[in-house]
Order: sequence, then structure tokens, then C-alpha cells
Amino acid sequence: MLVPFGTGAEEPCLRADAARNRARLLDAAARLVAEHGAAGVTMEAVAAAAKVGKGTVFRRFGDRTGLLMALLDHEEKKFQAAFLSGPAPLGPGAPPVERLRAFGCAALRRAADDLELQLAAEPCPDRRFLVPPRRARYGHVLMLLRQAVPDADCELLAQTLMGYLEPALIHHLTRQCNMPMERLQHGWHDLVARVTAARQPA
Amino acid sequence: MLVPFGTGAEEPCLRADAARNRARLLDAAARLVAEHGAAGVTMEAVAAAAKVGKGTVFRRFGDRTGLLMALLDHEEKKFQAAFLSGPAPLGPGAPPVERLRAFGCAALRRAADDLELQLAAEPCPDRRFLVPPRRARYGHVLMLLRQAVPDADCELLAQTLMGYLEPALIHHLTRQCNMPMERLQHGWHDLVARVTAARQPA
Repeated sequence: MLVPFGTGAEEPCLRADAARNRARLLDAAARLVAEHGAAGVTMEAVAAAAKVGKGTVFRRFGDRTGLLMALLDHEEKKFQAAFLSGPAPLGPGAPPVERLRAFGCAALRRAADDLELQLAAEPCPDRRFLVPPRRARYGHVLMLLRQAVPDADCELLAQTLMGYLEPALIHHLTRQCNMPMERLQHGWHDLVARVTAARQPA
Repeated sequence: MLVPFGTGAEEPCLRADAARNRARLLDAAARLVAEHGAAGVTMEAVAAAAKVGKGTVFRRFGDRTGLLMALLDHEEKKFQAAFLSGPAPLGPGAPPVERLRAFGCAALRRAADDLELQLAAEPCPDRRFLVPPRRARYGHVLMLLRQAVPDADCELLAQTLMGYLEPALIHHLTRQCNMPMERLQHGWHDLVARVTAARQPA
């Protein structure tokens, strides 16, 4: 649907329409990644899959790198929506330990879905812990740990749990050590149990 | 001591002498890092500190990057010698949990000593877990975990413990969150206790 430029009155509608179109292109790109890996995502393939002209994809994302970064951001926002306000146990409504278990397994699945993209987009060491997606995940894990083990140093434990979900580690374990994803998920459940277990003071 | 080139008989002696000279230059460089940070390490400063000509330092290491990489390697080898065969509890002779506690605290100290160097030398994600220094540390932690919690998935727990000691994380916690090193050491002891605690099967 084309909305003409005009008075300010149309603008929210135009923006909503533009956002929908953008989401449609990114959903098409995500399907291509799932089917063919990141290498299968070209501007042409996304245009064809979304049934739009190639020029539309270029105007929207600039180049392939812009498209891939936008795709990562889009997928991460869907993940954030799921753990912040989606159905339990990933979303609110389940006990904190159960939510932690669900969070890690969802994060592992998400990492497996576009591992090359996440590796390519890894920020340099002195920015890695400051980027918004990382902070959102960390804040969520921290909040759940504070409910589950209020007497612990939850900030350090949250960083430890986050370390298990680092794309570079998941890449090493699944691609270089050939571990099946089920083993990583089981290991996550085990780690959450160990980290949140009630224990005697040292 | 200068040893003349000649028959093969002198060569082992020459090599030993060269190795000693190299170690002397690297010890001087390490003192400069400790006093002034990595930025204080120049070829000239190392030559002056080791009381040799600047040409000697250039012949040995090529350039400043070569010197810094050699320095990291030299320090890591001293650390390896300490945890593989040095005095207990870091070296052999103490119970595995006590050795794990000592290992992490020594690794934290070592990271603090040349954090900028270690950050600058961080391998790219798909090589990060394959480089020899990382493999040596991982193998050591794995060996101790297998003694401490033989029924656990020690490979995954070892990666988790290693994640706590990542230079990028230590940089974030100490420089960006201003946590004192004592808190990180206490957090390591707590993590080792949680990870190695006897627990009920899930």
C-alpha cells in the first residue's frame, strides 16, 4: 500500500506501513538463512523471496552487510519480546529457575539458527559487554538470578551463565567438537541447577 | 657470554645462551608492562632496561608487535610451568578443588598484569578455542574437574569456568564496572564451590 507524502496526519500510517514492509523483507531473509545459511542471503534472493524489486531491498538496507545486521537486530528483538513478555516459561509467569532453563535453551536455539551471522557481528572485546542486545540479555538473567539466589553475587553468576551462551563457544562446541545441541541444552540445565542450588556459606 | 660459531659441539651452548638473552629481554619488557602498561613498552625502553643495544632487540623480535606477542607467550609459559609443575596448591600436590581455586586466582592476577596485551591478541571467534595457550589451560581445568566431579559433563563445566577467566570479561568487570579484583577472586571461589558441589541428579 502506497501512502502519499502530505500533511503530518499520514506520517504515522506511512511509518507503520514502512515498518511492515521492512519486517516482511527481514522475515524473507530469515527464511533464507534457515534454509541455506548466511551465505545464501543475497539482495537478489531476498527481493525474490519477498516478491519485491531488487531496488527496494537496496534502498532499505544499503548493502548486504546492512541487510545482515538488520536481520540480526530483527531476530534479537523477537527473542527479547519472547523472554520479556511472551508465554511462560520463557516469558513471565513461571518460577525463576524454570525461566532461566527456558532462556538458555531458547538462546542456544537462536545461536544455532544464525551462528555465522552472530560470529561475524561479534563486537571487539572492549565493546562486547556494552552493546544493547547483550545488556538486555544480561539484565534478564540477572533479574531471574536475584529472585532465585538472592544472597549470591548475582552479577558475577549472570556473567558466568551468559558466557555459556556466547556464539563463539557454541560454534566451537557444535562445529569444532561436534557436540549435538541436546548435549549443550542438558549442560545448560545442569549449570543452572548448580549455580542456583542452595548451599552452605564458604 | 659470547660463544663463537664453530663445530656442532658449541651449538647447544650457543642456543642456551641465546635463550637466556631472549628471556632477559622479555623479563625487562614484563617489568616495563607492570610499571607503565603496554603503552610503555617500546623497543628503545626494553633495550635500555636490559642494558643492550637497540639493534639487538630489533634483531630478536622484528618489531614492537613481535616483541609484545613474544612477551605474552613468555608470560603464559611461566604460568603453564607454575600450574603444571610448580608448588602446590597451584601445582600438583593439593586436592583438585583447592587447585582449581588457586588456578583461577592466578589466572585473574595474570590477566590483570597485561590485560591490554591479552585483549589486543584475542584470536578471532573461530580460532579462539583452538590456540595452544587456551587448550593448555582448558586441559588443566578439565583434568581437575574430572577428579573433583567425575560424574558431571566436565567438558562443558570446564568451558564455563574458562569463560569466567576470559580477558574481555575481566576487562569489562574491572575497567568498565570498576569491580575490585578481590571481588572477582571471591566470585571465582564461589563459582568453583557451586560447580563442584555434590548434588542430587536432576
